[in-house]
Amino acid sequence: MAIEHADNRVRALRSYLAQQGLSGFIIPHADEYQNEYLPPCAERLAWISGFTGSAGTAVVLQHQAAIFVDGRYVLQVRQQVDLQIFDPLHSSEISVEDWLSRVLKPEDKLGYDPRLHTLKEVKKLHQACSRSKAELIPCQPNPVDVLWTDQPQAPQAFVVPHVAQYAGQSSEDKRHALARKLQDDGIDVAIFTAPDSIAWLLNIRGGDVSHTPLPLSFACLRSDESATLFIESQKVTAELQEHLGSSVLVASVESFQSALEQMGRDQCRVLCDPQRTASSVFDQLQNAGAEVVEGEDPCVLPKACKNPVEIAGSRQAHTRDGAAVCDFLAWLAREAPRGKLTEVTAQDYLDACRQKQALWKDLSFPTISAGGPHGAIVHYRATEVTNCLLVPDMLYLVDSGGQYLDGTTDITRTVAIGNPTAEQRERYTRVLKGHIALATATYPKGTTGTQLDILARQPLWEVGLDYDHGTGHGVGSYLGVHEGPQRIAKTSSSVALAPGMIISNEPGYYKAGEYGIRLENLVLVVSDDTHHASDRSGSNSKH
Amino acid sequence: MAIEHADNRVRALRSYLAQQGLSGFIIPHADEYQNEYLPPCAERLAWISGFTGSAGTAVVLQHQAAIFVDGRYVLQVRQQVDLQIFDPLHSSEISVEDWLSRVLKPEDKLGYDPRLHTLKEVKKLHQACSRSKAELIPCQPNPVDVLWTDQPQAPQAFVVPHVAQYAGQSSEDKRHALARKLQDDGIDVAIFTAPDSIAWLLNIRGGDVSHTPLPLSFACLRSDESATLFIESQKVTAELQEHLGSSVLVASVESFQSALEQMGRDQCRVLCDPQRTASSVFDQLQNAGAEVVEGEDPCVLPKACKNPVEIAGSRQAHTRDGAAVCDFLAWLAREAPRGKLTEVTAQDYLDACRQKQALWKDLSFPTISAGGPHGAIVHYRATEVTNCLLVPDMLYLVDSGGQYLDGTTDITRTVAIGNPTAEQRERYTRVLKGHIALATATYPKGTTGTQLDILARQPLWEVGLDYDHGTGHGVGSYLGVHEGPQRIAKTSSSVALAPGMIISNEPGYYKAGEYGIRLENLVLVVSDDTHHASDRSGSNSKH
Repeated sequence: MAIEHADNRVRALRSYLAQQGLSGFIIPHADEYQNEYLPPCAERLAWISGFTGSAGTAVVLQHQAAIFVDGRYVLQVRQQVDLQIFDPLHSSEISVEDWLSRVLKPEDKLGYDPRLHTLKEVKKLHQACSRSKAELIPCQPNPVDVLWTDQPQAPQAFVVPHVAQYAGQSSEDKRHALARKLQDDGIDVAIFTAPDSIAWLLNIRGGDVSHTPLPLSFACLRSDESATLFIESQKVTAELQEHLGSSVLVASVESFQSALEQMGRDQCRVLCDPQRTASSVFDQLQNAGAEVVEGEDPCVLPKACKNPVEIAGSRQAHTRDGAAVCDFLAWLAREAPRGKLTEVTAQDYLDACRQKQALWKDLSFPTISAGGPHGAIVHYRATEVTNCLLVPDMLYLVDSGGQYLDGTTDITRTVAIGNPTAEQRERYTRVLKGHIALATATYPKGTTGTQLDILARQPLWEVGLDYDHGTGHGVGSYLGVHEGPQRIAKTSSSVALAPGMIISNEPGYYKAGEYGIRLENLVLVVSDDTHHASDRSGSNSKH
Repeated sequence: MAIEHADNRVRALRSYLAQQGLSGFIIPHADEYQNEYLPPCAERLAWISGFTGSAGTAVVLQHQAAIFVDGRYVLQVRQQVDLQIFDPLHSSEISVEDWLSRVLKPEDKLGYDPRLHTLKEVKKLHQACSRSKAELIPCQPNPVDVLWTDQPQAPQAFVVPHVAQYAGQSSEDKRHALARKLQDDGIDVAIFTAPDSIAWLLNIRGGDVSHTPLPLSFACLRSDESATLFIESQKVTAELQEHLGSSVLVASVESFQSALEQMGRDQCRVLCDPQRTASSVFDQLQNAGAEVVEGEDPCVLPKACKNPVEIAGSRQAHTRDGAAVCDFLAWLAREAPRGKLTEVTAQDYLDACRQKQALWKDLSFPTISAGGPHGAIVHYRATEVTNCLLVPDMLYLVDSGGQYLDGTTDITRTVAIGNPTAEQRERYTRVLKGHIALATATYPKGTTGTQLDILARQPLWEVGLDYDHGTGHGVGSYLGVHEGPQRIAKTSSSVALAPGMIISNEPGYYKAGEYGIRLENLVLVVSDDTHHASDRSGSNSKH
């Protein structure tokens, strides 16, 4: 995955594409589960480009190639990819689709893997191609898989029950409630391809990707409350079988396609999420003759609104996680002024503090331990090559979290080692003011994260500053540290914040080449009926 | 238009619809120009329902009828319509479409007038009908026109040039710039059906509707810079002909349809705005064989971003308008404590203060002069029936504006006659804090009104209060007092605020049955390059 290999790999890909009559191929950071977290076998973007960030897309054409990343990765991508080959582009300045409609020529044939793009993405790619009178061609097998001779095997981690003590609601209850909704909407079957939805629905957890207990699998729920879990048999234990019970059938991943075909033969009305499910699933359903209803995965909203047991679990996990972070910060305050610590030793110490806590299972993501200018790289990861000493008069940014059986945590602190400059104090204060304004906000029912976002940014905007990432993401319950559908961001969203949602609050300020500041806590949306309820419709919410 | 007539009218409409084989008919507050301001002949919604607000939609079915209004009109609609006939609904709680898909039955036939709905609206109506397996049927003539025996004639006001001294840019320059854009986009002709776009493009003003100098007409601009204005010949003077010059052809309104048919025969690529142009125009173009490109009316954004002459004109108009309002407020301070003034005498005095000002042409809308509980009716209009005395210990809300040759104004003040209560002081302070927060906001390029909206509401949200209307609307230059595309509102918008935009800043607080508070000034978006431009992409803006 080193940069020196990218040249050979891109050359091999171009030659293979030419043999197939293709003008280019698009490589997203995605697998067939359309999930943020990928197993090593699905790291095709890193294989072709060297870029290891958690989001991005490369397009390799015969005579040019581009890689699109968001604001968090604009610095990192330039360090990781061969700039002779890949043009690094900021996806909020130019979308993949706009770029394609500019560079594609009539009769160009752009390949894509229909397992790796949602239906919504494929529709946009189709529009982009048709604007240039080019063609979008599904490719199977994936050309990268053909060339990637030492591609790892798909992961086979055991799947375990997530017990009621932490889940707070039985899978049976969840399936009952969802099936009633399907009946009301005249739907026969709902398809689930998002591993976190399946984990929530069936109260199971897996270990197929790092730092998030996802069971990579597919599932469907019928309006009669019966469900099928499509999963590799090696992952299934007797304990899991017993937990799932008789109304959840366990089937092989290979049988997923034949199940879709059967839904077609049965002329089922099938609910499938165009923003979360691969376009290949829609293709298979439609070819089989099913009536596909496009709609949101019905697990998404109830999963986001934590139940009382999950909320209590999250508070307890945060108490233990906070103790670990306090241990670390106390140690850092003692040791850092001596100037002997490095980013890696600090990170190792923090990770060890967390591991000692009860119910600890994993980190919730690789700790970001960033001294000085590294703090300005939003998703920095200290490596042997980049590792630096933490020395006095440096800002140190540490963003980390844990996966505990009772909850998922995510916290960022920025610590001044020695004396911060006047500018650093002023910027830190503005970031803190934004954090506090968001944390203490009270707002009416129906308010979205888009509306609240400015609260965290305004102290920076006042002096012409900003940060180029979202302000907050949803967080799961011993599940994804990034979880939808709610967000707090500039980008427009129609998802109203609702009681029980857990969201990060993480404004920042980054001065490239000098330092970074970010202050993050998780907040819980709670309802607040103490105010003048008679004066307006609906009740208020606050964190 | 009195309530007692509504029963007969609705009965007559139902009987006519039944003869036509229709299950119902939809009556929007709209004319064929899709404009907020209607001439009396187009007040079909008021004719059928009695409701005289500036926005709303009625649906009359054989066994039920509903009228949909937004938050500004929820109180007014209940006073104006016969609640035995019409169910008054809040359009932000249930949309016309959602209601239709609930109440329509399979094989119902819902009539609509394709001249009175934009293409976008018709698409939504089609979806709503198809969800209930009902049919949407275009009706011509409009059933209301058939039954409305004393329907007024269409207005015939003269159209006059809007001279360079106030317009700041010649029509020729505007047409040149727009035609180049059409060429770049491969468009042969752009269609304009919004009278304010036509007024801006051709630097003309009319008098067909109250309070806004709109020339009701259609127009098109070709990529060769030639234009046609389709307008009733009685409105055209020799002065106008000379002003328009030789590259603007003046044609009859009747010839608009044949011009569309000719575009079809010529196989033109025609740009037409699905959010601003009636679906009948799209139907005619498509039936004629034209290639219709759906896109935003290209006058909208340049019209919204005022040029330096328009900005200077607006400042001067505001200076004179401010003097008139000061005259009025001084008089009010002297006279009101005696308890002899009424809403109507106050309104008449204010209107007379404005009329004395240089370049005054009209009010920009009927003055809202509202004492006590009337202040809580957001778009209240004092009539002989509702007129009340202004007496001590009452809040008085006055929202008014002028049309001057050099600019359009809109201002709201809330005045305490005698002593306000502690609650009123506290609420007034919160509204003022919101107004000031928005007025002083600084924000990066690309920021939308949706993002800023919370600034005006937060002091109210803090204590569980809110107001049920937008915070700000665009304002024209001697043109519409409500003008798009920018807004400051909760509803999501992708239109970034841009230098030169004039927007109202008008948070409020309303306590039904007691009092209303609203504080409104117009603000101008200006660029602000004094800040840390090196720290972030793009420059900041502020008001």
